[in-house]
Amino acid sequence: MRLSVFFLPTLKETPAEAQIVSHRLMLRAGMIHQESAGIYSWLPLGIRVLKKIEGIIRAEQDGAGAQEILMPTIQSADIWRESGRYDDYGREMLRITDRHDREMLYGPTNEEMVTGILRDHLRSYRDLPLMLYHIQWKFRDEVRPRFGIMRGREFLMKDCYSFDLDFEGSKRAYNAMFAAYLRTFARLGLKAVPVVADPGAIGGNMSHEFHILAETGESTIFYDAAYDDLDLDMENPDIEALRGIYAAEEEKHDPADCPVPPERLKQAKGIEVGHIFYFGTKYSKSMGLTVTKADGEEITPEMGSYGIGVSRLPAAIIEASHDENGIVWPDSVAPFQVGLVNLKTNDADCLALCEDIYARLENAGIETLYDDRDERPGAKFANMDLIGLPWQLVVGPRGVKAGTVELKRRASGEKEELSLDSALARLIP
Amino acid sequence: MRLSVFFLPTLKETPAEAQIVSHRLMLRAGMIHQESAGIYSWLPLGIRVLKKIEGIIRAEQDGAGAQEILMPTIQSADIWRESGRYDDYGREMLRITDRHDREMLYGPTNEEMVTGILRDHLRSYRDLPLMLYHIQWKFRDEVRPRFGIMRGREFLMKDCYSFDLDFEGSKRAYNAMFAAYLRTFARLGLKAVPVVADPGAIGGNMSHEFHILAETGESTIFYDAAYDDLDLDMENPDIEALRGIYAAEEEKHDPADCPVPPERLKQAKGIEVGHIFYFGTKYSKSMGLTVTKADGEEITPEMGSYGIGVSRLPAAIIEASHDENGIVWPDSVAPFQVGLVNLKTNDADCLALCEDIYARLENAGIETLYDDRDERPGAKFANMDLIGLPWQLVVGPRGVKAGTVELKRRASGEKEELSLDSALARLIP
Repeated sequence: MRLSVFFLPTLKETPAEAQIVSHRLMLRAGMIHQESAGIYSWLPLGIRVLKKIEGIIRAEQDGAGAQEILMPTIQSADIWRESGRYDDYGREMLRITDRHDREMLYGPTNEEMVTGILRDHLRSYRDLPLMLYHIQWKFRDEVRPRFGIMRGREFLMKDCYSFDLDFEGSKRAYNAMFAAYLRTFARLGLKAVPVVADPGAIGGNMSHEFHILAETGESTIFYDAAYDDLDLDMENPDIEALRGIYAAEEEKHDPADCPVPPERLKQAKGIEVGHIFYFGTKYSKSMGLTVTKADGEEITPEMGSYGIGVSRLPAAIIEASHDENGIVWPDSVAPFQVGLVNLKTNDADCLALCEDIYARLENAGIETLYDDRDERPGAKFANMDLIGLPWQLVVGPRGVKAGTVELKRRASGEKEELSLDSALARLIP
Repeated sequence: MRLSVFFLPTLKETPAEAQIVSHRLMLRAGMIHQESAGIYSWLPLGIRVLKKIEGIIRAEQDGAGAQEILMPTIQSADIWRESGRYDDYGREMLRITDRHDREMLYGPTNEEMVTGILRDHLRSYRDLPLMLYHIQWKFRDEVRPRFGIMRGREFLMKDCYSFDLDFEGSKRAYNAMFAAYLRTFARLGLKAVPVVADPGAIGGNMSHEFHILAETGESTIFYDAAYDDLDLDMENPDIEALRGIYAAEEEKHDPADCPVPPERLKQAKGIEVGHIFYFGTKYSKSMGLTVTKADGEEITPEMGSYGIGVSRLPAAIIEASHDENGIVWPDSVAPFQVGLVNLKTNDADCLALCEDIYARLENAGIETLYDDRDERPGAKFANMDLIGLPWQLVVGPRGVKAGTVELKRRASGEKEELSLDSALARLIP
């Protein structure tokens, strides 16, 4: 993509309304545009990151055996009355009356709807186990939306629902999602710690929040250093063992009663980006979802929910990965892999070399943002650092004469003068 | 994907409520599930088709030079008051009041919002021309939603907006989209005819509806047979010439005044799936979007809108491509390319061969739905015909002994007995 035509409305000034670094950087990098309180548009740079994140989440959900569906944003109040949550949910639910005076709502979550789909279509115990997920916009009418997309009102969520014949099945589903979540966050370039969450009315330890570690996180986490050494590429991770590794939020952490020896106990700030929990027959029972087993027994399937805050993740990643000059995208979610900088667009040799490099990178399938604008070098460098692409390839008149280009790794700041072929060999796998 | 675990709730009976063939077949094939009047969930088979369609539309929008963004579903009433459409829009607009009593709405379209984004960010005439598109859910509170997703209330739309410095620029944008639309529908396996639409208050002939031809279409189209012979792969289609080819809806077609000789005039039924139109400064003017040209002149950009009914397309494709046994998916949008049918799952040789074929197809990246269920052959054949995958590869005990498999092309019904290698050579490019 040529920057001269790319819609990238970066800001030089730091927006006054942005209180946290991710909000500031997303506005300054032209990733998002506020439409109303807690409601944002995603501009071209922003949606590229969002789609990369979505793709990784989707691949790991599919890999865990979940199947993708897509439920609508608008729901009927009726199913929420069946589950008993319509009145309970309070003012965070955006309630809507349609032209025929039917009570509707903008879904904040989908337990009721997915249970309703199974109720209409589950015909045999052989249809279970089943995990269904979707990636869809939700709305929660927060009283005080803030921190940009980190705590917005309209937000994108991946929510998965498991249906099993018995508790053992639910445990398998839970463990599969637990592993998928660890892998997902690792692929996003994040360190995630699963913290035992409030089990609620169900009991047991099958409720975990996933916090990613970032200095600017809202919560304080104590955790066993064993999480720092996890090998998530293993074929069959021992999930029961993984779930046994200690991690707790500050308010639940009792130093006197902590099973981790002090030398292995770590403390860090975290941002919640996922929550998985088993809730048994709460919805299947209240909504009358049953299935008949081979022996004729009618049973009520056991369920669990598994959420990831998709649109919160670009912000969470920035909180975890930035410096004073801007964003530092992990390779896996970067909007482009390479920023190609022409330092002197009115120099015929620079221009010819840049056009050649751009064509070669594009042909090799390397997503490249090519700064072909007539701008000062300083402005170009600052812009590239701000938007945080993993690699910067800089072409200037002196280098062209010497037969070299400069390759900079954004994360480390390390720069190398290389021949063009050596530089391209680093970028093209 | 193994059918034994795939969530495919097909129906044997024809649902009584479905009045048109696409609605009947989408319900019978387990593609969608109704949640409320005009509001549907997309089940695994359905969303696979929807995503293929989305991918083709996205590629052609990108190819035409449009840039993807994503605007939210919920909009503030304020921007609609600025344009003057808030009161005009009537009861099809789903109006919402949030917890702070602010007037919001579920966007039925996005002219106001995208104009607002440009108003905040357009800094120089050099930022134009610009085309921005998004693929997002919309809501129109139709008084009588019907025909399944064909006329739903919550629906997915691709809407693109062009911004230009002058009319000549707008015409270039319009022509680029005109060509992109013809290519898009051709890639979807559809024959689309662009019909001059009501120019409205703007005048001129820069407003076209795209109707795809299907016997069950709602509108009657008269068109020049030249559309049947278009070569859309040409590098630089002469769009002015293309736009000159005659096509009109019945109510605007006057046989006495038709420029097409009778032997070249064709008549067909059509379904509207897209609409493009130029509307000048209607929104930029009312919302105060301006930009200063190089000579200091302040101008109001000219705009156009370009919509495709994305979630309507699976239904439109089915209307155009089905037979008495079910759906016939064009290759480009089929949920899987191959249906692999094991006729005798309890036969060790059949099973081993099927597992081998399945692994080879999957390894080659061929999306395969493998019917590994313990079911009667008749039920398996009927199911494969119903869901309409382009190819069926049938493995039975007799063939295994003879060293052959049966390959059936769904569209033609043609069957061939082939050696396994010959069959795979047909399927793996």
